[in-house]
Amino acid sequence: MVNLRDYGWKCGIFPTGPTNSLMDVPGVSLGHQTLISGDGKLVPTIGPIRTGVSIIFPHQGNLYRKKVPAGVYIANAFGKSTGIPQICELGCIETPIAVTNTLNVGLVYDAIVEYMIRENPDIGITTGSVSPIVAECYDGYLNDIQGRHVKTDHVMQAIQNAKTSKEVEEGSVGAATGFQVFQLKSGVGTASRILGKDVVNLEKNYHIAAVVFPNYGIFEDFLFYGNRMVDYLEEIKYFPYGRKKPSIIPQNMHGSIIIVIATDLPLSSHQLTRLAKRGMNGIIWTGSHVSNGSGDFVFAFSTENQISFEDVGVKKCKFISDYSSVMEYAFRAVGELVQEALYKGMLAAKTLMGRDGHIAVALDIADLPKIN
Amino acid sequence: MVNLRDYGWKCGIFPTGPTNSLMDVPGVSLGHQTLISGDGKLVPTIGPIRTGVSIIFPHQGNLYRKKVPAGVYIANAFGKSTGIPQICELGCIETPIAVTNTLNVGLVYDAIVEYMIRENPDIGITTGSVSPIVAECYDGYLNDIQGRHVKTDHVMQAIQNAKTSKEVEEGSVGAATGFQVFQLKSGVGTASRILGKDVVNLEKNYHIAAVVFPNYGIFEDFLFYGNRMVDYLEEIKYFPYGRKKPSIIPQNMHGSIIIVIATDLPLSSHQLTRLAKRGMNGIIWTGSHVSNGSGDFVFAFSTENQISFEDVGVKKCKFISDYSSVMEYAFRAVGELVQEALYKGMLAAKTLMGRDGHIAVALDIADLPKIN
Amino acid sequence: MVNLRDYGWKCGIFPTGPTNSLMDVPGVSLGHQTLISGDGKLVPTIGPIRTGVSIIFPHQGNLYRKKVPAGVYIANAFGKSTGIPQICELGCIETPIAVTNTLNVGLVYDAIVEYMIRENPDIGITTGSVSPIVAECYDGYLNDIQGRHVKTDHVMQAIQNAKTSKEVEEGSVGAATGFQVFQLKSGVGTASRILGKDVVNLEKNYHIAAVVFPNYGIFEDFLFYGNRMVDYLEEIKYFPYGRKKPSIIPQNMHGSIIIVIATDLPLSSHQLTRLAKRGMNGIIWTGSHVSNGSGDFVFAFSTENQISFEDVGVKKCKFISDYSSVMEYAFRAVGELVQEALYKGMLAAKTLMGRDGHIAVALDIADLPKIN
Amino acid sequence: MVNLRDYGWKCGIFPTGPTNSLMDVPGVSLGHQTLISGDGKLVPTIGPIRTGVSIIFPHQGNLYRKKVPAGVYIANAFGKSTGIPQICELGCIETPIAVTNTLNVGLVYDAIVEYMIRENPDIGITTGSVSPIVAECYDGYLNDIQGRHVKTDHVMQAIQNAKTSKEVEEGSVGAATGFQVFQLKSGVGTASRILGKDVVNLEKNYHIAAVVFPNYGIFEDFLFYGNRMVDYLEEIKYFPYGRKKPSIIPQNMHGSIIIVIATDLPLSSHQLTRLAKRGMNGIIWTGSHVSNGSGDFVFAFSTENQISFEDVGVKKCKFISDYSSVMEYAFRAVGELVQEALYKGMLAAKTLMGRDGHIAVALDIADLPKIN
Repeated sequence: MVNLRDYGWKCGIFPTGPTNSLMDVPGVSLGHQTLISGDGKLVPTIGPIRTGVSIIFPHQGNLYRKKVPAGVYIANAFGKSTGIPQICELGCIETPIAVTNTLNVGLVYDAIVEYMIRENPDIGITTGSVSPIVAECYDGYLNDIQGRHVKTDHVMQAIQNAKTSKEVEEGSVGAATGFQVFQLKSGVGTASRILGKDVVNLEKNYHIAAVVFPNYGIFEDFLFYGNRMVDYLEEIKYFPYGRKKPSIIPQNMHGSIIIVIATDLPLSSHQLTRLAKRGMNGIIWTGSHVSNGSGDFVFAFSTENQISFEDVGVKKCKFISDYSSVMEYAFRAVGELVQEALYKGMLAAKTLMGRDGHIAVALDIADLPKIN
Repeated sequence: MVNLRDYGWKCGIFPTGPTNSLMDVPGVSLGHQTLISGDGKLVPTIGPIRTGVSIIFPHQGNLYRKKVPAGVYIANAFGKSTGIPQICELGCIETPIAVTNTLNVGLVYDAIVEYMIRENPDIGITTGSVSPIVAECYDGYLNDIQGRHVKTDHVMQAIQNAKTSKEVEEGSVGAATGFQVFQLKSGVGTASRILGKDVVNLEKNYHIAAVVFPNYGIFEDFLFYGNRMVDYLEEIKYFPYGRKKPSIIPQNMHGSIIIVIATDLPLSSHQLTRLAKRGMNGIIWTGSHVSNGSGDFVFAFSTENQISFEDVGVKKCKFISDYSSVMEYAFRAVGELVQEALYKGMLAAKTLMGRDGHIAVALDIADLPKIN
Repeated sequence: MVNLRDYGWKCGIFPTGPTNSLMDVPGVSLGHQTLISGDGKLVPTIGPIRTGVSIIFPHQGNLYRKKVPAGVYIANAFGKSTGIPQICELGCIETPIAVTNTLNVGLVYDAIVEYMIRENPDIGITTGSVSPIVAECYDGYLNDIQGRHVKTDHVMQAIQNAKTSKEVEEGSVGAATGFQVFQLKSGVGTASRILGKDVVNLEKNYHIAAVVFPNYGIFEDFLFYGNRMVDYLEEIKYFPYGRKKPSIIPQNMHGSIIIVIATDLPLSSHQLTRLAKRGMNGIIWTGSHVSNGSGDFVFAFSTENQISFEDVGVKKCKFISDYSSVMEYAFRAVGELVQEALYKGMLAAKTLMGRDGHIAVALDIADLPKIN
Repeated sequence: MVNLRDYGWKCGIFPTGPTNSLMDVPGVSLGHQTLISGDGKLVPTIGPIRTGVSIIFPHQGNLYRKKVPAGVYIANAFGKSTGIPQICELGCIETPIAVTNTLNVGLVYDAIVEYMIRENPDIGITTGSVSPIVAECYDGYLNDIQGRHVKTDHVMQAIQNAKTSKEVEEGSVGAATGFQVFQLKSGVGTASRILGKDVVNLEKNYHIAAVVFPNYGIFEDFLFYGNRMVDYLEEIKYFPYGRKKPSIIPQNMHGSIIIVIATDLPLSSHQLTRLAKRGMNGIIWTGSHVSNGSGDFVFAFSTENQISFEDVGVKKCKFISDYSSVMEYAFRAVGELVQEALYKGMLAAKTLMGRDGHIAVALDIADLPKIN
């Protein structure tokens, strides 16, 4: 995992958590299943396969019985993520969050239903139904996306990986296997920040963290902490076979990012939506225009104030006032950590060739601007 | 105050509060200032005056320093109510709610600012600014609405009335002075319900109440507990000088209701918005089509979990789960009480002649369908 | 198909289309695939099967290449319908609308992707991706919902049925096979209205139609044109084995309706959303409280102003002003036709026994109140 | 008016309009009334006065009778702008847009009503009512904001100035008289871009322009085209009497920007809202965190497809498809022009001392980073 601070970059004003990753929020885990096989020739429904699925668990208990408060901000909804209306209505999530490729949403949705029924055999019989959260980006530039290669077993394996992983894996893995960002190779990235005594006089340390699955932007858009990277990156190195011109094509296929934000601050669903909105700032600072063809979804959940079916009367909970400066600090922290997560993911990615000879080259850390 | 139960009507399934009015929620008060003067001839900016202002206080303390959680549902936004975006963002209100005629919104807004500064001399200097809630309906059929006759002193008097009134006044008073509903005379109406041990096994009695300021509908639309009132009301009695045909006129001037819901249930702003939405059911049941020209705004606040500038860290609060059956009961209670409030307001109204010989006749309780 | 007018009911003020069904909007079609098999004993994943899938086509051309303007109103989002955010962002739909049971959403989603790729082999390769609209209600009281028995072939058959059907089929078919409404047997219902020369002086006849898939309410809620049906229906006839008490259960499982509205009026996506909202009035008039556990989704589309990838510059289109009285008439028409569609669907339904001896009895037209 | 290109700055990829100002959209005009008087000592309700009002007209005809399509994006709604819900419902505006200080909203609202009645004596009598758009930011750091010094006559004068001005005035005028940005002196800024043959193969030149009224951010946040300005600006020069520490104060008083975007592209209200959202990108690129205490409102209108009361049936209009690349270009153009407008406004501002010795120093163009 690259530490930008080793190269002199400041990455904002807040201290990072111990691992500067999604796992710094206690109980949160992330697992991937990566699918790469087949040669580079596209035979519809056969391959090449350059895709995957990633799974985020807000905690390690039974999510259906301990739902977590959640919100979602949609920067642009040219996207197919499921479960959004119910998050908006009830302000919580009750399944792990899955991320995959666009056309695989249906099968991954069904796999999550299967997993939830295995864990909760009463679903649909004596309790209610269940609302899976499946997010997606388009990976068809590299992957045989029509093939919908992510099957139930792959989702179960990613779930297993999330439940057993000791650390967060970044780069060209899971859902981001076939993603591109700024026409370079994209990768899963994570980062975290601490709000605590040293920052806002809270009585203990709280954490905000995020994982990003980026798939947006053209080469000319890329900003690294304010630096226009088109001035630093050699075109022949990053586009060895030439480059698709950055003109805007009619179908508006540029776009999309999925962000999942986790925190142990006791925020309400409404506050989490406001937090999610500021997560998008971190992406805009990297040069995103929130393009017309983007599916830009930011999910945010809190591990506090969990909701159980047993909560039938008036219960006690914790909260942070919208008038508290903790909100302002949280907003600033989430912007800077999402921006860092984006860069970390790019730097962890590996160059990949996909269908029809398409290639996406990974960003070389040696090409970043030098700090004086 | 008419009690429909005396006439055999059931009015729903929940018990009413002691006064079946807005004041059954502890601390909540309502005051009116009614303006009637001038002859019936419209001389722009002179008269006749058939208007007023009504004020609702969520509690009797300093609202700016003890803000209350609030939500708002807009059934149709052909209306000019102020303060809505900030309620949606911050989930609370910090001023009394004022209701008046459409063109008077600016002056009443300024009067609320004046009142708030008198109570909080630090506003705009050492604390932040203030966001008045001013709602409105069009009363120009009876009133010289261009005259904007509600001035700062009238608002201050309505505030004083709210602070000193011992009971709720219904009928053709305050903001509803010049309003019509189903082309009959409209009036302020209120009602309340209790949720408690006998209803949902709560540990104590909670209250939901509402006040309605109705100004919608054509004669043919009016339903009284399912009965089409056009079959019961004699046209010559209610439209002695003939009736404006119920055709839809281009400007879509039919419409509008302002509803304010109060509760001491500890609901979040998001839940209050959901509650407000169900308040509108009560209006739809009376025959509203939520017309194209309507400004149908439903405000809802809770007197619990008040928000103070001193809440800087993690605080304790109470809450009700969205999965609790209390929510379902609250939704059902608010629908039935708003429906009853509408009928109560109509029955408390008095026939009034306004500008250019326009007349609005009040509903005669003797004309209601008879219960077998 | 029952015609309530034969029994003296008025059903509103607007003329119906020739068939008083969804198909009165030129080009629109509806097809079902009904799945009933297995005995009444619930063996998880085996049966009994009491479910299905229904498909609505806005027109008979290539939907991906001739998208239709669309809007969606969510009365309550305790539901899992997919494709909502993209409708809100882009204001159109590009696939048929599928309706099925809650846990089958994933598989039906994938089947729609499969169908769309077959029709458009460039999806995901040279054009963009595709956003299926899959709506659902919970049918687990009668159906083995965990089994997710609706497979790709069933969806393809329903599509085929939609493309070849000459008339609309109502009642206990397709998605509504296992649905209940007011604890009685539910059924697919449709109705239509005409706006034209005789109504609003339009230059030709325009149509508004809807199909409803109802699954909400308790017995006590049911209103038939204002009449409380609990006073007309004999409990022993409709609940031969006794009745689950109408108390609100913690999981809030009561609820849900899916409505699809079609029109050839040239309405924008924003206007279609406003129209969809008024469709819900028709349901509230039947006694719905828009319960806490409801997934109440209303989709609306127009067959005019279709959108093609070739529309790259400034194009001509038709529109209706939001200030036109046509909007008001359309709002009134959609309310009354949705209400009628609900009643028609109930009257077309057949009594059905499902899992664990659960039974839902169909409404007998002989039990409706008599018109004097 | 500063031209950043003279100093070597690129300011994006699109050509500017002839004046690089709001007036490049044919028919659009902007007028200010600036109020400065009184010494620096704050005597409540007396002074010092450092405030004003600005007025934007979408066209020079009768706005009430030729309403313009409009949308609004709210980045954060800790603000008091009026008229928002009706814009969201009906998608148009029917009055000039006024911008002023926070506590003056009521009086300016009433002045706009007065102006509209003078122009349309039928308002409220034979036509409907009117919905003023009044936006605001807090200027109480420099201005005696409690005094509400902007009166009806000032609004009428600003209207007159808008109707007669031959060019756009930038800097510390009108509403921005007392505003600060990044703790420096703020000013009104404008910019424009052309979309036409050379850009997206449109058949003629179209224009997008904006005016910004900035009032947000702390010194440390300020980015000038990616450069952290805290590294370039000498603290003693910009804060001669020391600086209020940039800690986040409980009341979250940092914040707010009002942006008005104008275009002659035939965009729908929904598309204008999407365009408005991208206008905010330009502000985020300057270092905004969209703070908790911000009232960040972006209004956008089109001068095409105007709406008249006479539009009673099906009318013809123009439109741009959401799938057209024109949308993508418009999104990119609006981001870059809003960013430039912000810088232009800052560079046109003049240092001002206000109440209690508070001073806001204007940005010196000599302190910008040098282009190599």
